[in-house]
Amino acid sequence: MSSDKHWRLKLQDFVEHRFFTIVVMLFIFVNAVIVGLETYPELYIPYQEWFYIADRVLLWIFTVEIVLRLIASVPFYTFFKSGWNWFDFLIILAGHLFAGAHFVTVLRVLRVLRVLRAISVIPSLRRLVDALMRTIPSLFNIMFLMGLVFYIFAVIGTMLFATISPEYFGSLGLSVLTLFQIVTLDSWTEAVMRPILEIEPWSWIYFISFVLVGTFIIFNLFIGVIVNNVEKANEEDTAKDEETDYQKLQKELQEVKEMLRDIKNSDPK
Amino acid sequence: MSSDKHWRLKLQDFVEHRFFTIVVMLFIFVNAVIVGLETYPELYIPYQEWFYIADRVLLWIFTVEIVLRLIASVPFYTFFKSGWNWFDFLIILAGHLFAGAHFVTVLRVLRVLRVLRAISVIPSLRRLVDALMRTIPSLFNIMFLMGLVFYIFAVIGTMLFATISPEYFGSLGLSVLTLFQIVTLDSWTEAVMRPILEIEPWSWIYFISFVLVGTFIIFNLFIGVIVNNVEKANEEDTAKDEETDYQKLQKELQEVKEMLRDIKNSDPK
Amino acid sequence: MSSDKHWRLKLQDFVEHRFFTIVVMLFIFVNAVIVGLETYPELYIPYQEWFYIADRVLLWIFTVEIVLRLIASVPFYTFFKSGWNWFDFLIILAGHLFAGAHFVTVLRVLRVLRVLRAISVIPSLRRLVDALMRTIPSLFNIMFLMGLVFYIFAVIGTMLFATISPEYFGSLGLSVLTLFQIVTLDSWTEAVMRPILEIEPWSWIYFISFVLVGTFIIFNLFIGVIVNNVEKANEEDTAKDEETDYQKLQKELQEVKEMLRDIKNSDPK
Amino acid sequence: MSSDKHWRLKLQDFVEHRFFTIVVMLFIFVNAVIVGLETYPELYIPYQEWFYIADRVLLWIFTVEIVLRLIASVPFYTFFKSGWNWFDFLIILAGHLFAGAHFVTVLRVLRVLRVLRAISVIPSLRRLVDALMRTIPSLFNIMFLMGLVFYIFAVIGTMLFATISPEYFGSLGLSVLTLFQIVTLDSWTEAVMRPILEIEPWSWIYFISFVLVGTFIIFNLFIGVIVNNVEKANEEDTAKDEETDYQKLQKELQEVKEMLRDIKNSDPK
Repeated sequence: MSSDKHWRLKLQDFVEHRFFTIVVMLFIFVNAVIVGLETYPELYIPYQEWFYIADRVLLWIFTVEIVLRLIASVPFYTFFKSGWNWFDFLIILAGHLFAGAHFVTVLRVLRVLRVLRAISVIPSLRRLVDALMRTIPSLFNIMFLMGLVFYIFAVIGTMLFATISPEYFGSLGLSVLTLFQIVTLDSWTEAVMRPILEIEPWSWIYFISFVLVGTFIIFNLFIGVIVNNVEKANEEDTAKDEETDYQKLQKELQEVKEMLRDIKNSDPK
Repeated sequence: MSSDKHWRLKLQDFVEHRFFTIVVMLFIFVNAVIVGLETYPELYIPYQEWFYIADRVLLWIFTVEIVLRLIASVPFYTFFKSGWNWFDFLIILAGHLFAGAHFVTVLRVLRVLRVLRAISVIPSLRRLVDALMRTIPSLFNIMFLMGLVFYIFAVIGTMLFATISPEYFGSLGLSVLTLFQIVTLDSWTEAVMRPILEIEPWSWIYFISFVLVGTFIIFNLFIGVIVNNVEKANEEDTAKDEETDYQKLQKELQEVKEMLRDIKNSDPK
Repeated sequence: MSSDKHWRLKLQDFVEHRFFTIVVMLFIFVNAVIVGLETYPELYIPYQEWFYIADRVLLWIFTVEIVLRLIASVPFYTFFKSGWNWFDFLIILAGHLFAGAHFVTVLRVLRVLRVLRAISVIPSLRRLVDALMRTIPSLFNIMFLMGLVFYIFAVIGTMLFATISPEYFGSLGLSVLTLFQIVTLDSWTEAVMRPILEIEPWSWIYFISFVLVGTFIIFNLFIGVIVNNVEKANEEDTAKDEETDYQKLQKELQEVKEMLRDIKNSDPK
Repeated sequence: MSSDKHWRLKLQDFVEHRFFTIVVMLFIFVNAVIVGLETYPELYIPYQEWFYIADRVLLWIFTVEIVLRLIASVPFYTFFKSGWNWFDFLIILAGHLFAGAHFVTVLRVLRVLRVLRAISVIPSLRRLVDALMRTIPSLFNIMFLMGLVFYIFAVIGTMLFATISPEYFGSLGLSVLTLFQIVTLDSWTEAVMRPILEIEPWSWIYFISFVLVGTFIIFNLFIGVIVNNVEKANEEDTAKDEETDYQKLQKELQEVKEMLRDIKNSDPK
């Protein structure tokens, strides 16, 4: 074993050690507390410089962490096979890239997003988010349908109500936003429909049909995911359960056959 | 094979070719972009004529597409066996019928609805919508019950509150609309119930009972569909799974019987 | 067979005949249309007398129907074993009792409620409502818990906020109503919590805890019913399905045993 | 058996007797009625002293009850093994501790919370709440994720909108409250987003992304619990059901093997 490899394996052990993870989590927690404290102007304004230094120190700590994990990967590009590592890498890289720039808001948001690294560091949280993410592809079709319905209703809404209710249907973008509001059922009658209804008495057809179609699609999306999950859970379950029962019965039958073979062999004599 | 039939089969191949579908989807996409751009007055007003021409060209392209698919069907009336074909046919036909008329709004809405043809053209979307549609008949009974409850509450609401709250319960139609608002739980207390409650202190009985009955029915509708789907999924699942297990066991038993028959036959000698 | 019994059986046949049901349904439909038309003052005021006559005629038609069904029951008190018959009977009886009285509103509401008889007359609707009703007893425990939570929060709410927000928490009754509004998540922050929060900065504890506890209970009620139903459906399913598979296997085993017995019997010789 | 033990067993029998439970429930009910009546100022002000006495009496009755149950436990510290007993004990203890103090509101709230003891006294309610509680640990991960998402959005929200909308995003605490309001979809567009949108046209990204992420997590939490429960229910079900079917088949096979063994044994001779 070459000295280089030996050294790398040691680094890998170090990086994957429980203690290393706990220390990183601690720094993420410190980061979370600092960005929280920054929102209090009575704290932030007098100690602005200290906050800046703390942030710089944390950024470099995270940079060292990522570089160590990058070096520990053999070969190093395997590091980028995990989406979580990409996420960690880009968040930190962006912190360095925007450091000198004047986009103060972007920089501050990035600092907050570093707290999201808690997900990539805590394994159980990572598995949970991975599981949540996996449900998205199966929803692709229904989301495309939803998008189509949104687009068609947004175009019609802008066509019909742009002059009557410019605040809600003034442009295609505003209409999409208003339709999103309607599908969450937030003040859809009081604020959106009733003022339009006074001018266009037939506009209820537009709103009611959108509410029915929109909630029907969401409702089916919901049911689809539930059924999918229950089915999957059952499958694994029955697979495990029945296999054994079935295998026991088959084993018994095998024994019966064995005995019959014995009888047959002993018989002709 | 007659020359006519030969020619028709070729047309059928052409119409069902993947390339044909992609081209049609492309034109639907162009149609979608155009109706979207039309909503921007700064674009629409100066280029109004170009929009008109583009729309005419698209209408004729879709007409040719439908006519080709109609001719390719042998015999031609099989084309109308699919609801999706009817949908495509009527949308395009209506585009021609209203072309000269003055119903500008109807014409523009029709142009937008042509985007919905994306559903009939993309097979996976078509299957999804077909599946969604199939859940509707099983909901028929519960929807009839919902309609009955709506009607009875609407009549009582109009009777009791028409003079107190003409905006919400002024007529049977308005009452149905208000009940729909209440069942979506949008501002049902703030805007609808509380002003009436100040005049009629007992009116909460009406509102609370409707909210309870209405949400209870929707809740059961929801559960019914979930249970129905889980059951169906399980049935298919177990059917497939167990069949094989059961068949394997039966095959084994068949072998045992075969062996026993052998023993019996060899025995008496 | 006595002449009386013969006559009764004939009446029973008549009452249970599909044609009789259809005629009753028709009159219920006419009743529904009439109560609907009554809500239009431009129709009701000039033809008030005609409406009165139509209502009287319908009431007597329904009375005859109920009496016929009552007589057809042998012995007659079996009629009252069904809750639906009680419902039909009381609705019609009340129509006669209040006929002379001055409670015009009660009388009109009763006339509308007669439309509900559609449920008791249409068998599929009756089964549906029966099924919905059956889910209620299993919810009893969770509804009692909900009631307890409502009562405790209502008392505390009245204690704390009666003077700050008399409109929402002025009395125990108003508090219960407001809590119901909060649990439906209708304007609970904008209208209810935020004005109180300005005076009592700690009041969010009350509202957030109620929203969490309330929705958590409803959420569990929901899940309980779903699981219950899926379980029940599965049970019936597996029972039916497996039985047959299992029975086939057992039958095969029986045959094997039969063959073995044959061998045994033929063997000793 | 010593006289002391004998006396304790008798006490235990007494404390666990159905009659004892009913009497305690009765006093809890009286407590509930009294705290309810206290909310009516027209009753409370003239009879303030009587209310005070009734409350003192009830507190001492409950104290005696708890002490009896504490003594009846052998050894006495087993009493504190149940969370419900702790709950009963602390509620009553707090009643005594705050008795002389001036925290009138705390005292009154404690008096109302005593009604919650109905849960610990009624066994079926206790089981229900125990069951509800058990679902919480499995939700821990997803609730931690929710907390993380809330914290990150709250910090960003305070950073971006503190000056624009001080009422909703003025401090970290207010932002968390507003995010809770948004996730319940209560007036999230009308009251929260639209006023901010007028000043910051890009703020919709913040709100829409939070609504999507927030509802997606809640949606998955919901589905997770449903699937978990259905699975558990199915497991118990299949376990019970299949076991018997499988066992019957195995028994049959056992008999077949027995017969074969007989044949084998009888054969060689």
